[in-house]
Amino acid sequence: MSDVKKVVLAYSGGLDTSVILQWLRETYDCEVVTFTADLGQGEELEPARKKAEAFGIKEIYIDDLREEFARDFVFPMFRANAIYEGEYLLGTSIARPLIAKRQVEIARETGADAVSHGATGKGNDQVRFELGYYGLEPNIKVIAPWREWDLNSREKLLAYAEKHGISIEGKQEGGSPYSMDANMLHISYEGGVLEDTWTECEEVMWRWTNSPESAPDEPLYIDIEFQGGDPVAIDGEKLSPAGLLGRLNDLGAKHGIGRIDIVENRYVGMKSRGCYETPGGTILLRAHRAIESITLDRESAHLKDEVMPKYAELIYNGYWWSPEREAMQALIDATQRRVNGVVRLKLYKGNVILVGRDSSNDSLFDQTIATFEDDRGAYDQKDAEGFIRLNALRLRIAQRRG
Amino acid sequence: MSDVKKVVLAYSGGLDTSVILQWLRETYDCEVVTFTADLGQGEELEPARKKAEAFGIKEIYIDDLREEFARDFVFPMFRANAIYEGEYLLGTSIARPLIAKRQVEIARETGADAVSHGATGKGNDQVRFELGYYGLEPNIKVIAPWREWDLNSREKLLAYAEKHGISIEGKQEGGSPYSMDANMLHISYEGGVLEDTWTECEEVMWRWTNSPESAPDEPLYIDIEFQGGDPVAIDGEKLSPAGLLGRLNDLGAKHGIGRIDIVENRYVGMKSRGCYETPGGTILLRAHRAIESITLDRESAHLKDEVMPKYAELIYNGYWWSPEREAMQALIDATQRRVNGVVRLKLYKGNVILVGRDSSNDSLFDQTIATFEDDRGAYDQKDAEGFIRLNALRLRIAQRRG
Amino acid sequence: MSDVKKVVLAYSGGLDTSVILQWLRETYDCEVVTFTADLGQGEELEPARKKAEAFGIKEIYIDDLREEFARDFVFPMFRANAIYEGEYLLGTSIARPLIAKRQVEIARETGADAVSHGATGKGNDQVRFELGYYGLEPNIKVIAPWREWDLNSREKLLAYAEKHGISIEGKQEGGSPYSMDANMLHISYEGGVLEDTWTECEEVMWRWTNSPESAPDEPLYIDIEFQGGDPVAIDGEKLSPAGLLGRLNDLGAKHGIGRIDIVENRYVGMKSRGCYETPGGTILLRAHRAIESITLDRESAHLKDEVMPKYAELIYNGYWWSPEREAMQALIDATQRRVNGVVRLKLYKGNVILVGRDSSNDSLFDQTIATFEDDRGAYDQKDAEGFIRLNALRLRIAQRRG
Amino acid sequence: MSDVKKVVLAYSGGLDTSVILQWLRETYDCEVVTFTADLGQGEELEPARKKAEAFGIKEIYIDDLREEFARDFVFPMFRANAIYEGEYLLGTSIARPLIAKRQVEIARETGADAVSHGATGKGNDQVRFELGYYGLEPNIKVIAPWREWDLNSREKLLAYAEKHGISIEGKQEGGSPYSMDANMLHISYEGGVLEDTWTECEEVMWRWTNSPESAPDEPLYIDIEFQGGDPVAIDGEKLSPAGLLGRLNDLGAKHGIGRIDIVENRYVGMKSRGCYETPGGTILLRAHRAIESITLDRESAHLKDEVMPKYAELIYNGYWWSPEREAMQALIDATQRRVNGVVRLKLYKGNVILVGRDSSNDSLFDQTIATFEDDRGAYDQKDAEGFIRLNALRLRIAQRRG
Repeated sequence: MSDVKKVVLAYSGGLDTSVILQWLRETYDCEVVTFTADLGQGEELEPARKKAEAFGIKEIYIDDLREEFARDFVFPMFRANAIYEGEYLLGTSIARPLIAKRQVEIARETGADAVSHGATGKGNDQVRFELGYYGLEPNIKVIAPWREWDLNSREKLLAYAEKHGISIEGKQEGGSPYSMDANMLHISYEGGVLEDTWTECEEVMWRWTNSPESAPDEPLYIDIEFQGGDPVAIDGEKLSPAGLLGRLNDLGAKHGIGRIDIVENRYVGMKSRGCYETPGGTILLRAHRAIESITLDRESAHLKDEVMPKYAELIYNGYWWSPEREAMQALIDATQRRVNGVVRLKLYKGNVILVGRDSSNDSLFDQTIATFEDDRGAYDQKDAEGFIRLNALRLRIAQRRG
Repeated sequence: MSDVKKVVLAYSGGLDTSVILQWLRETYDCEVVTFTADLGQGEELEPARKKAEAFGIKEIYIDDLREEFARDFVFPMFRANAIYEGEYLLGTSIARPLIAKRQVEIARETGADAVSHGATGKGNDQVRFELGYYGLEPNIKVIAPWREWDLNSREKLLAYAEKHGISIEGKQEGGSPYSMDANMLHISYEGGVLEDTWTECEEVMWRWTNSPESAPDEPLYIDIEFQGGDPVAIDGEKLSPAGLLGRLNDLGAKHGIGRIDIVENRYVGMKSRGCYETPGGTILLRAHRAIESITLDRESAHLKDEVMPKYAELIYNGYWWSPEREAMQALIDATQRRVNGVVRLKLYKGNVILVGRDSSNDSLFDQTIATFEDDRGAYDQKDAEGFIRLNALRLRIAQRRG
Repeated sequence: MSDVKKVVLAYSGGLDTSVILQWLRETYDCEVVTFTADLGQGEELEPARKKAEAFGIKEIYIDDLREEFARDFVFPMFRANAIYEGEYLLGTSIARPLIAKRQVEIARETGADAVSHGATGKGNDQVRFELGYYGLEPNIKVIAPWREWDLNSREKLLAYAEKHGISIEGKQEGGSPYSMDANMLHISYEGGVLEDTWTECEEVMWRWTNSPESAPDEPLYIDIEFQGGDPVAIDGEKLSPAGLLGRLNDLGAKHGIGRIDIVENRYVGMKSRGCYETPGGTILLRAHRAIESITLDRESAHLKDEVMPKYAELIYNGYWWSPEREAMQALIDATQRRVNGVVRLKLYKGNVILVGRDSSNDSLFDQTIATFEDDRGAYDQKDAEGFIRLNALRLRIAQRRG
Repeated sequence: MSDVKKVVLAYSGGLDTSVILQWLRETYDCEVVTFTADLGQGEELEPARKKAEAFGIKEIYIDDLREEFARDFVFPMFRANAIYEGEYLLGTSIARPLIAKRQVEIARETGADAVSHGATGKGNDQVRFELGYYGLEPNIKVIAPWREWDLNSREKLLAYAEKHGISIEGKQEGGSPYSMDANMLHISYEGGVLEDTWTECEEVMWRWTNSPESAPDEPLYIDIEFQGGDPVAIDGEKLSPAGLLGRLNDLGAKHGIGRIDIVENRYVGMKSRGCYETPGGTILLRAHRAIESITLDRESAHLKDEVMPKYAELIYNGYWWSPEREAMQALIDATQRRVNGVVRLKLYKGNVILVGRDSSNDSLFDQTIATFEDDRGAYDQKDAEGFIRLNALRLRIAQRRG
């Protein structure tokens, strides 16, 4: 184990990664570079710097990745209308590849030969981090302390922290009873009472969104403008990717939008219950489908729907940095050039209600053809007879066979 | 055209099919058998009988198909979690094959050589009816008046009715401005102001559900029990398929559940806007996914998700009575044997909120493995290292290639 | 029908299209522009010019499209390893979109308002032509004489020809008894004795390839070099796309390669027997798969295999000029950048035997890892334990459920 | 490690599994039950019994599994037309699940608590065995000596054998330089000179089939009869599943059929070269596709083609005993009921040439419709116009958008 010289640690500043920091130095006798990312999780990052300094860390990276996250990860994924297992909007899954990429870059910049993360050996995040590491830097050494050490109970961890003078403020009694992950796309909750799949989750668990019950009694109408499949403005105001997602989050959170409670299938083989709140993403998915509904060709749309489950699975399982994800992205992106226009939504107590959609140059909705009124010959109803008869031909031949 | 002797008409008793009835007799000089189905559309059917009698029809069929519809059409479709284009629950699509099948049966019983329906040449329903007719009785003569006659404006139709003494009660001024279809799964609305995709639909349009705003302020909790992938009881009370769907409709309609407003891609090649209310179906879909989430194996679930868009497309396009739909149904049904258990939901102002799910004998959720606490060796975290390393191997080799 | 002023006819110079030429003028009282394409079918095209001139045609287009055909149609399709129904290499299907495109271009150049082709109303080619016309020029008038006229027997056609002084040289007794199509990718045969699916096709039918029996007793070794998924050289000699495909055809035809005899499913709903000889394409498919086998990532390859049947179906059905084909092409092409290297094949009496494959810069075959000898730690066999255990976890949990 | 009491070993009687037998006893101080399966590999099994007895083994199982293998494994797989990566007929992959199942049964019969196999930690077979073990008996202990011991070079293995008096007859100098696997579906070759992907494999390597060059100069015609998608007779003679596959093997081997040389993607992440000879299977695949071509509906056939790559991947990766394979099998089997009839083939120097196919009661080939002659109204060519126009509608609308 002594062959590690310098390790880049994904460091949040919290208890767990602080213990890891210390454990890495002690176990590997190596230098540690800390990396703390602002993905819009809504926490101050300066405390992480202070803590790292207190550990005597010399190379401390604190990066604001919010725009890159929204632009290059969240938005491409939403072009695909990606949902895992019919419900989950992949809020954690989509953040891990960016953290992994940045860790590898920092390893190159600092001459580090290893990377490390704080994910356990039971979950999906270890896979997402490490497939990123290996996919981007095949010879890097990966250290996953939770799979190596013997601090596998809360008591041992706290004892180790105490022994090394690591602050455990509020971790013993208060603090969240849930395992959480937060970024500008979502907050997730796992563990604790959620491990009984029959128990209703407590209102107090949710940190971000209003409940539908406590959301305003007045609905809110908003317009979202899309260009090339990506949202670019809200109510006529152009916004950066992170700015726009943030705005949608504010509106969604206020109106009680985006909570789900699911049992999902982890890549490592077990089922696990997770609760998620994804206020802006929930609005965005509905809006994106709506703008596609008038601008995207039927067969392109169906093709996207057919490949989507696999695409979502790839992201869930950690294969963002894979050639197959890139190939599928090429397919998806090839369909989005004309996905331009505006969608109007009504937000009300947990509901995202579609109200209208329009596209000045790119709509494929042709009222002259679709009308229930006299279409003046735009469509010849007699064509339908041949259409049906030839589509029925193989069925008729089969039925005649008896 | 004189070769038709007897035709079985799908007859609602309304103006359009009454005109068709008369037009068929006049045009083909043939006998007409009327067939009126109770699919839970919530209308009295006896008036249809009276009207048919007034026309002098001798063979009048009025059938209650509600249980067959729920049991053999709606429920099998919901086993697949079928959704068309991400939104539409296929309420009209799934009813047409049953009507077609019954028409063909009646044709055999009455010695009729033709069947007829009132769907226009622009929509999907003509395809769904006729693929059913041809698929079940390949040599049957199909008459689609809307594609043949010249009554292609409202005025001409009304003039024809008046000329033949057909009641046009309320059709001239009052009546719905929408083209509607109703059965126990849904009501659909098309046409009228909906032909402008930007215009918000009016509250007065919706006939069935409360709006989220007008729904009760108190949430309702309900338990749905599943056996073999189908719902069998609500709050512990066993119900027949139609009884159960009806109960869910009542609850959903009260709580403002199941409205959508979409632009969809018709099989005949145009985009069309449709508004749908599917109160019970919307609850059922959420509940079915939830019971699957703890009882269905991951890869079976993903396989279902991958084939679902095509399955939904088949039903939308009218291919219920096709070998490919049957083959896909075999796949789907093969996964449902252990989909047993109870789901608890909370209904509130348009929201179907999942609260809990449990299965006494068939749950695959294993708390001893999934726990965030000490699992006492149920899962060896070290296994994850090899799992990740071999999954990463191809990515590493590719990256080394440079 | 008198609204057609000028029509661009896909004109071969043969009897059928000569009759069509005359019939178009007579029926529509319109000008006719003839278009004859050299797609490598191996016929002189100047006779077509002479015949058109003899009809008094003023605008005669004779275009050599061989390079465009190979480069922009055949090669992109082979990147996908496209095969229809497990056997058919789509030789006719892939030529129609190019003819359609060129006809539309000529219509624009000559101010024509209509296009016409000689395909019957029973086959796939009418669909392929017309989907191309409509997809590229939505308002064009399409004339399909075989669906309009009453010359629906051989006798009537010949009588019409005779009446109008159209040469029927050899059509009455001699000539092929088969319906044929030829281009530089293949020759197809349909009809005649092939309509009995049990009858063996006659050796005399095949126009191009040697039979395996009559092929040389000496095998031939050849090397094919690929760049970016396309073949670029044979035995070290760089060749243009058409040149290379022609060379493969010569070699394949000599060595008895590429005959198939199938019953296929037409898009219009019937089954039809077709015999095809595709000497160069058969070699190319095998070679392309082989170079992919060492340069393409596993999951990219499997993804391609999963979408291939749909891609092939699209081309077979005539949807080359569709957004869904383009989206799938984007996926396919995204995988081909590193598909570089050389494949060695042995051709012998109908067999295309793979002998070797190599890629100096892009091989993903890693002998140090794959070796059955001591790999000196390149691969840690212990990793497999965790890999298997986690992949088995869901199966174990399911089995424990009993 | 001392907790193993009795282990069921998949025992071939060869050097490797003999060393494993001894190593298991020495390492685990446990009883060993040997299990030797006759899968038609063409070796005497009695020597394995003798060797086991010489080791003092008390519980020796030698089972003839040939009929079960052909009937319940090979034939169901061929119903799917399964091919891995376009070439490989899965000869090894399909045998492992049966061996695993039988080992688990024997473990239950003998009260054994563990199972063991001789596959290395680099290949697919370990996965196939162990997913079978775990999927059928979730709590069984699995021992994979190649991943545990330190006998990881040929020298060490031989030294260990010598030390324990295990016969190494011919293993030091003679013997095959290849890693081989044989059963009644195929023989595989890996390793040795094949590790250079450019080197042509030697003629002497192939143990079973004639080369095309040395195959008879006279072609052979055979008829294969199918019932329900499975072959049941050759040239009119009813044969058992194993009997039929054996007969096809004899004929194919004589006529030089079924050799391939590929680089494949292993589930564990590396590329590997394998040479395979599958004489009977190669004939069977061609024949099965041919009988399907006249008896199977188009969309069912295309659906099968679309799911086939995933089905083949599942079997290759070892997931025979999985719910997703069973669900896909349900889909496949649901299509095969009417796949009845006869196929005529011509075998000649490596070629399997399709000559005819017929089905007295189940053919969907309708000559009256398909004919190029006058069809007397069986098919109305005018139907094609509407068919094309509606299929083109979305393309036209899109093109008009500009």
